Amino acid sequence: MPTYALPRLSTRALAMKASEIRELLKLVSRPSMTSFAGGIPDPALFNVGLFQDAYRQTFAGPSIAREALQYSTTEGYLPLRQWIAGRMAGMGVACAPDNILITGGSQQGLDLIGKLVIDAGDTVATAQPTYLGALQAFSAYQPTFEALDAPRAACPAKLIYLVPDFANPTGETMSLKARHAALAQADAMGALIVEDAAYSALRYDGQDLPTIAALDQARTGSIESTRTLYCGTFSKTLSPGMRVGWICGPAALIRPLVLLKQGADLHTATINQIIIHHAAVDSFDAQVTRIRSVYRTRRDAMLAALQRYAPEGVHWTRPEGGMFVWVTLPRHIDAGDLLKQALRADIAFVPGSAFFPDGSGKNTMRLSFSLCDEAQIEGGIYKLCELVGQVARRVEMVVGA
Amino acid sequence: MPTYALPRLSTRALAMKASEIRELLKLVSRPSMTSFAGGIPDPALFNVGLFQDAYRQTFAGPSIAREALQYSTTEGYLPLRQWIAGRMAGMGVACAPDNILITGGSQQGLDLIGKLVIDAGDTVATAQPTYLGALQAFSAYQPTFEALDAPRAACPAKLIYLVPDFANPTGETMSLKARHAALAQADAMGALIVEDAAYSALRYDGQDLPTIAALDQARTGSIESTRTLYCGTFSKTLSPGMRVGWICGPAALIRPLVLLKQGADLHTATINQIIIHHAAVDSFDAQVTRIRSVYRTRRDAMLAALQRYAPEGVHWTRPEGGMFVWVTLPRHIDAGDLLKQALRADIAFVPGSAFFPDGSGKNTMRLSFSLCDEAQIEGGIYKLCELVGQVARRVEMVVGA
Repeated sequence: MPTYALPRLSTRALAMKASEIRELLKLVSRPSMTSFAGGIPDPALFNVGLFQDAYRQTFAGPSIAREALQYSTTEGYLPLRQWIAGRMAGMGVACAPDNILITGGSQQGLDLIGKLVIDAGDTVATAQPTYLGALQAFSAYQPTFEALDAPRAACPAKLIYLVPDFANPTGETMSLKARHAALAQADAMGALIVEDAAYSALRYDGQDLPTIAALDQARTGSIESTRTLYCGTFSKTLSPGMRVGWICGPAALIRPLVLLKQGADLHTATINQIIIHHAAVDSFDAQVTRIRSVYRTRRDAMLAALQRYAPEGVHWTRPEGGMFVWVTLPRHIDAGDLLKQALRADIAFVPGSAFFPDGSGKNTMRLSFSLCDEAQIEGGIYKLCELVGQVARRVEMVVGA
Repeated sequence: MPTYALPRLSTRALAMKASEIRELLKLVSRPSMTSFAGGIPDPALFNVGLFQDAYRQTFAGPSIAREALQYSTTEGYLPLRQWIAGRMAGMGVACAPDNILITGGSQQGLDLIGKLVIDAGDTVATAQPTYLGALQAFSAYQPTFEALDAPRAACPAKLIYLVPDFANPTGETMSLKARHAALAQADAMGALIVEDAAYSALRYDGQDLPTIAALDQARTGSIESTRTLYCGTFSKTLSPGMRVGWICGPAALIRPLVLLKQGADLHTATINQIIIHHAAVDSFDAQVTRIRSVYRTRRDAMLAALQRYAPEGVHWTRPEGGMFVWVTLPRHIDAGDLLKQALRADIAFVPGSAFFPDGSGKNTMRLSFSLCDEAQIEGGIYKLCELVGQVARRVEMVVGA
């Protein structure tokens, strides 16, 4: 029996590579581990009773249960879009349900926006470092990535990707001035802004800053004349396993996004949209208040432990919210090597180079405080800092600093 | 306040257009309508109690509930992949969970496969007419579409898209000989086969034919040396609103598909996979037996009514399963015009030209029997055939036949 060649994969697929770090972390995950790696909510904070009730009520009436199990429109469940539109208005983004597309988490929002805008060779500007999943989503459409702060006049970006609040991976927040500047930069380049608001609800200190979508709308008075696509999600607040997020933007862009989503997966699971709507109406604010207070304590514990144990030459961000602290090690330390040693000591984190499109940032790491309690954080940071100190002394001897 | 230009959308987005028919049907849908339009399951046949139980049991234990609400792996929920692998083996496709990727319905399977294989300008071969959603999914990657039976040696297809059982829209089934021929054609062209098995469980007469994936494997003995990606779904059997489907194929192709899905939406909703697994283990076969018997009766009612009322010159397929009868009208009748008149008489269907990449097939229509009971089918086909007769007489007068 002869075998025949398979076709060459697409150029985009040939360019993909699995993240070594993801694979490594998948292999070594074990219960004894103190993990500062995953940027995921603590499942102990999920409001299980709330979801249980929502499902019970949905199945109490056969008519709503059948609706929940049936196909539905690509745009999404209208009551959920209405609730989201109300929330967006509360943040200064006056909009209608037609300005909202429900997506499979905000990750799908990024994929659809890439599909909408990017032709091969177009420029996408991002912070460096930035969210790995955004790089992955956009890469499928084969753009060139550029650093936000180093635009080359020769190839103005079509898309500017921003995580204004408590960014993944740095934990940093854009100042009001920086938000205005980003808008002015987008105007000058004729670029679309993707505002990824994944962590925005999780503020622990200070005042909320206006979203870029709100600043954009404030200039002209209508969402229809804005250049910002706002990506929201219920993953960090209610539940990531439900995969419900949204894009909010001008209807002229939402309409083609709806068509792209229709081709991509028809629609987000009907029942999940009904349940998330139920949960959001019932207790979104209470849930946010509750998890903010827990995560705030954990952030404080991590910052205090770093202050106490970090050897000289180690620097880190002080996030006002979100899930991440970004650590910069002395220049000669490779966080990838450090990870291998840390895993042997049952500590996990993500080396920072994973978040740079060009793989730089070898001496950085992302620490998440969302999954560990204060004692684990204290113990884990102590052990990690010990390791950093040992490696630093060894490197100094070799380098002869 | 000056306004600034937005960037040009991607070439793929600029080429998209909303389906006029979909928009029309959305506008006119009302309860009084006899709809032969949607290819969707009758919600009265959903096993609501089964899902109710599955959710109740999932929320009975806090540990499984938290798992259900949390992020999970891109590949999919292992017990579900194991169940599917067992089912595939039962159909002659021996495989392991690593050969299965869980997708957001089989629609997402088509999108991911397009993303995996198609570069702009590549050739995709399909039956003409074929499933509109496949054309939509693949179009995002800008291929050229060719008819399966008219391959041009100049541009061998990279992808051959087939719906072997009870195809959407024609209701036709590929013979065993045609399945072997498609494999030989794929071998000769070095093409990948996409086997869309959306309707395969819904057979009402005759014997199951081997899937193309099974024929492919039978030649070499291992799934790893096949060229077929099989797309399955629970949408036509258990529930479409859950959005759970799968791709089964060689691990060498599943692995890059996993990476593409990671960028597209991270993973299919965890809870939906757990619930579908529960429902499948508990009563997949019983559910299939039950809905087959109802849909068989409806198919019979539609074929009998066509036999009874169709004017001369009207032809139609006799499907052995699925949801569709494909009707060919006399050459001068435009099914798009007929639809406008039918809607005034409270009858809906889909004009067949929607299913041709080149918009041909003006005198064809797709009738679905899945949503109507026998009396509605009898009454609806009577009215529709009356209309066809009137239009045929009018056209004859004008054309002077």
